[in-house]
Amino acid sequence: MKNITVLISGNGTNLQAIIDNVKAGKINGKIVAVISNKADAFGLERAKKADIPTYFIGHKGITREEHEQKIIDILEKEKVDLVVLAGYMRVLTSLFVGKYKNRLINIHPALLPAFPGTDGYGDTWNYGCKVGGCTVHFVDEGVDTGPIIIQRANEIREDDTLETFKQRGLDIEHQALPEAVKLFCDDKLKIEGRKVKIEK
Amino acid sequence: MKNITVLISGNGTNLQAIIDNVKAGKINGKIVAVISNKADAFGLERAKKADIPTYFIGHKGITREEHEQKIIDILEKEKVDLVVLAGYMRVLTSLFVGKYKNRLINIHPALLPAFPGTDGYGDTWNYGCKVGGCTVHFVDEGVDTGPIIIQRANEIREDDTLETFKQRGLDIEHQALPEAVKLFCDDKLKIEGRKVKIEK
Repeated sequence: MKNITVLISGNGTNLQAIIDNVKAGKINGKIVAVISNKADAFGLERAKKADIPTYFIGHKGITREEHEQKIIDILEKEKVDLVVLAGYMRVLTSLFVGKYKNRLINIHPALLPAFPGTDGYGDTWNYGCKVGGCTVHFVDEGVDTGPIIIQRANEIREDDTLETFKQRGLDIEHQALPEAVKLFCDDKLKIEGRKVKIEK
Repeated sequence: MKNITVLISGNGTNLQAIIDNVKAGKINGKIVAVISNKADAFGLERAKKADIPTYFIGHKGITREEHEQKIIDILEKEKVDLVVLAGYMRVLTSLFVGKYKNRLINIHPALLPAFPGTDGYGDTWNYGCKVGGCTVHFVDEGVDTGPIIIQRANEIREDDTLETFKQRGLDIEHQALPEAVKLFCDDKLKIEGRKVKIEK
């Protein structure tokens, strides 16, 4: 059983998807902590409801390094095997990323390397793409540049609005992220350079 | 009936797909010329076999503008409504692009804006993507930046090689490009800024 920690900043629907999959016995792991940099992140309520220890680690008035150290203290205490960024809206320093190299994954709402950054859905939509999607990837020192674990396409329909496109995209995210977590916990992911092989 | 010209540089499998769809009566248009900048492009043979007038317009020893003018002369003589770039490996000047604005389409073997340039399949593969695809788009002054008509996803499988990924991708291209040509010939494409609306 792997020890999983999820970092959030908001609503936590991807956290909920992981909670549900763990509860259903589909993931060979346990969520040992949910950490938010926002005190009012609704995801903290989701975690409490599932009896998962929650932590609010605010970033105001302290340095980026101090903030990350507080998170690292929790991760070390909980002997964490996997750190999942699920809508965590702060860029991590290379210190943190280096420390959790190959054990730190993120979900991004676009088909990387297209549309990195903070608004994957909006950027895909505004560019006039006909296919969007999501990417689960290991985090490296760049912004949304790490080796890709899973991508799922989301075809844009003629009658879509940004909202309907995004809603369908979130449903796809809620399948892709738990799938990646499951594969990690089953030791099925093998990083070879830029590529992630999924073993049978 | 729209007059269509196809520009090629090589094998011409996308040209063949358009020929087949025209022949099957699925496209409300006629291919009035196939133009190649390579004398030995096999696509010229495909066109001849389908009784389509062919032109070899070499680009060696003349300026880019002179080369394009020779093509424009053919397009004007044939009263062309739509110019299709199907594996045409030369970048067109803004003079040409401006002249055929909104009547010039290209197929690109990646999900733009990811992986513009000359090796969409290889670049997608080497990045370690799990989803590739193709894009049919109107051509503007940039390289592979124009408004997108159609995109189709091509999920990369664990047992794929670059070759199997590319082969499946070509099959998808051969559906997407004739579909875009059909929509154009049926006057179904409406460009609104960066977006292409497909009318019912």
